[in-house]
Amino acid sequence: MADLIQPRTLKGFRDYPPALMIPREWLIETARRVYRSYGFSPIDTPALEYAEILVGKMDAEAEINRQLYRFADQGGRDVALRFDLTVPFARFAAQHIGQLGSPFKRYHIGLVWRGEAPQAGRFREFMQCDFDIIGTTANAADVEIALVVNDLMVALGFERFEVRINNRLVLNGLLEELGLAEHGKTILRVLDKLGKQGRETVFKELTAAVVDRGAGLSAEQAEQVLTLAGTGGGNDEVLAAVERQFGRNPKAAEGVARLRELVSVARTAGIPEGRMRIDLAICRGLDYYTGTIYETFLSDLPGIGSVCSGGRYDNLAGLYTKQTLPGVGASLGLDRLLAAMEELNLLPKASTPAAVLVVQFSADRLGDYERIARELRAARIATEVYPEAKKVGPQLQYAERRGFPLALIAGPDEFAQGLCKIKVLATREEKTVPQAGLAEAVKGLLAADKGK
Amino acid sequence: MADLIQPRTLKGFRDYPPALMIPREWLIETARRVYRSYGFSPIDTPALEYAEILVGKMDAEAEINRQLYRFADQGGRDVALRFDLTVPFARFAAQHIGQLGSPFKRYHIGLVWRGEAPQAGRFREFMQCDFDIIGTTANAADVEIALVVNDLMVALGFERFEVRINNRLVLNGLLEELGLAEHGKTILRVLDKLGKQGRETVFKELTAAVVDRGAGLSAEQAEQVLTLAGTGGGNDEVLAAVERQFGRNPKAAEGVARLRELVSVARTAGIPEGRMRIDLAICRGLDYYTGTIYETFLSDLPGIGSVCSGGRYDNLAGLYTKQTLPGVGASLGLDRLLAAMEELNLLPKASTPAAVLVVQFSADRLGDYERIARELRAARIATEVYPEAKKVGPQLQYAERRGFPLALIAGPDEFAQGLCKIKVLATREEKTVPQAGLAEAVKGLLAADKGK
Repeated sequence: MADLIQPRTLKGFRDYPPALMIPREWLIETARRVYRSYGFSPIDTPALEYAEILVGKMDAEAEINRQLYRFADQGGRDVALRFDLTVPFARFAAQHIGQLGSPFKRYHIGLVWRGEAPQAGRFREFMQCDFDIIGTTANAADVEIALVVNDLMVALGFERFEVRINNRLVLNGLLEELGLAEHGKTILRVLDKLGKQGRETVFKELTAAVVDRGAGLSAEQAEQVLTLAGTGGGNDEVLAAVERQFGRNPKAAEGVARLRELVSVARTAGIPEGRMRIDLAICRGLDYYTGTIYETFLSDLPGIGSVCSGGRYDNLAGLYTKQTLPGVGASLGLDRLLAAMEELNLLPKASTPAAVLVVQFSADRLGDYERIARELRAARIATEVYPEAKKVGPQLQYAERRGFPLALIAGPDEFAQGLCKIKVLATREEKTVPQAGLAEAVKGLLAADKGK
Repeated sequence: MADLIQPRTLKGFRDYPPALMIPREWLIETARRVYRSYGFSPIDTPALEYAEILVGKMDAEAEINRQLYRFADQGGRDVALRFDLTVPFARFAAQHIGQLGSPFKRYHIGLVWRGEAPQAGRFREFMQCDFDIIGTTANAADVEIALVVNDLMVALGFERFEVRINNRLVLNGLLEELGLAEHGKTILRVLDKLGKQGRETVFKELTAAVVDRGAGLSAEQAEQVLTLAGTGGGNDEVLAAVERQFGRNPKAAEGVARLRELVSVARTAGIPEGRMRIDLAICRGLDYYTGTIYETFLSDLPGIGSVCSGGRYDNLAGLYTKQTLPGVGASLGLDRLLAAMEELNLLPKASTPAAVLVVQFSADRLGDYERIARELRAARIATEVYPEAKKVGPQLQYAERRGFPLALIAGPDEFAQGLCKIKVLATREEKTVPQAGLAEAVKGLLAADKGK
């Protein structure tokens, strides 16, 4: 056996053992349930695509281009693994929107691959979790994306979070007023660093030659941009301030109107006050957003950045079709959330999805153990039968190590009397119950165990 | 715009639009729920692995080797996309079994890639759906795999199906008795074609030089093998026949004992008679099975072959570790099932996961529509609000086209009276109900709609 192959994963990749995979599946299932509850439909696209589709008009020197897993397949085709779900969705929409009809609401949960330098919490294979409404410019769609983000975070168990919302029309309006409209994208990209790098650094960058297609902003202009971005106060105050300062600009006025409607609809729909916060400093780095913009911050984990971000765009699939497809959407940072929860020890310890281990006390009762287990499963209690009839001690150790809440023990005495012992593994308490009412007894103990 | 990129997928790959993806997600979720109900834990492994791990000791000329998507990554590593979930699981087990402890029960649902010639219902990217119990030779594990297969098929809505079970020990026992033990693997591979190619062809192959490492079987030997494989009758009769003929052989005796226990436990556990059928002709092509073997056939779709197959093996991860890891498991042919259901028009027509479309009658009531939708969602009724306040007609067409069962309409009159109109789209019936009891009314109509 000198020629064993060393078992290992590639750098930047990792295995998901049960203790990580159970919460990951829970996150995915929860996201899926919320998306579906709003009528978003699932789609999927292949992991491999023609490289020309994925690369599009991308600069050959662009970072993402260098990170691409690109190769020639058996047929000599130039192919690559998808690096996000947006580009495949654009290709998909161009190809199928005729049959699908619009507006079209989809979610897409899938793996993407980027050969970037591995670092803590970032991997070369990770999952994206996108949802979009395309084929409409209606503000109702923008509002709905914010509502989905709210419901998603609540369903994931968070209460203390904020959906920060802006509209690029507001900032673009100001830039028009300042005569800086043509540098809009560059300025927004600098401004996007405000949260991380602070006002002083951004001021310097704005006034320096960093604004690459022109000279830097004047100190006064930079001051105005930063003052707008820093406008504080409640949502109504912020909007009133913008209106007062340059509501005469049509873009700014439209941005304000759309934000105002979003806040008002969310209130009528019953979203708690404070969840949706207009924050004029939020602008996202990506060029292609043109309207509403979303970021989501956990009040107790601000360090991990936005966990759900997105925005409105004017045209999704211009590379592949002449049809203009405006839309709005966002993406849940599922693996970021999972890695953060792991780091902060927020993940449950159990490495089994089951609630009950049926101890195999004697091999000749296997049929009865499986019968009991099936009765519990029929009552939606996940139940495992230990596969070997070894001593009870090691079987209970197995159950404890994996985090089963309960173990069932039935030997000849119990069977003679139609009884069953239930052991609560956390407290080591034992209870003897009739086999006839087992599912109810187990449910009661599970509820009590959870309550602790 | 002369430079549009043609939107297309690679040959052998396909998109999953909602009408295909909704049933696919349902299949996956159902499988996951059943696996979990037995205490199988989820794992995942990377799509990309070192090629040496995946290729193992495989013959360079092996078909699977030629089908591999293999390339050099940015760091010059020789990597490949996984072509199944068994090899990655073997690598995973070798690496982690120390921490995980054994026995270890896992399921793994994930995409695999094979560059094979595309044909109807077969794609170069497809999903596998495996479940295994490793680290034990106990027959209780073999029994449980059969129980899982039964519950899986029932959960997927099938009633008329058969889990066909055999044990390689039985056939190996006969071959020992015939002095053919050393040709066992080859003979089993020929015998595996019995179902598809018939007795005559297999007889010819068995007696011809096809048995490559020796001369062919004698006509008498071939007759004995085929007679055993064709043993008919109920499970008890088949087992009695084997025992009578060569129960003196220890391998055959063990095979019979294990099959007998399986059938008996299944009966005690409450599996309907006829579901588990001992079929001595079932032998699977793969070399590495050594004990119990499973195939599953739909009585109404026999043509698609086995939809859930597997078996017991002596050692999972011998390429990567000195530790011997015996196990037993099976794999649900999810995409095969989906393709067959698609071909047979068995898939539901709806391309939305939602049950209710709230018509946007007037834009100024958007907050109320979203409030109503949230109330329905809180009652677990998936509800979409149409994003644009266009005429009612096109909104209802949108709902019909996508297969929404119900549409809600509330204009100024309804709001003034606290009412809401519900339209049943299949029958075009309309009902007016108070907004206060909306969720209950919707549930009632959905139940009635489903009942039709």
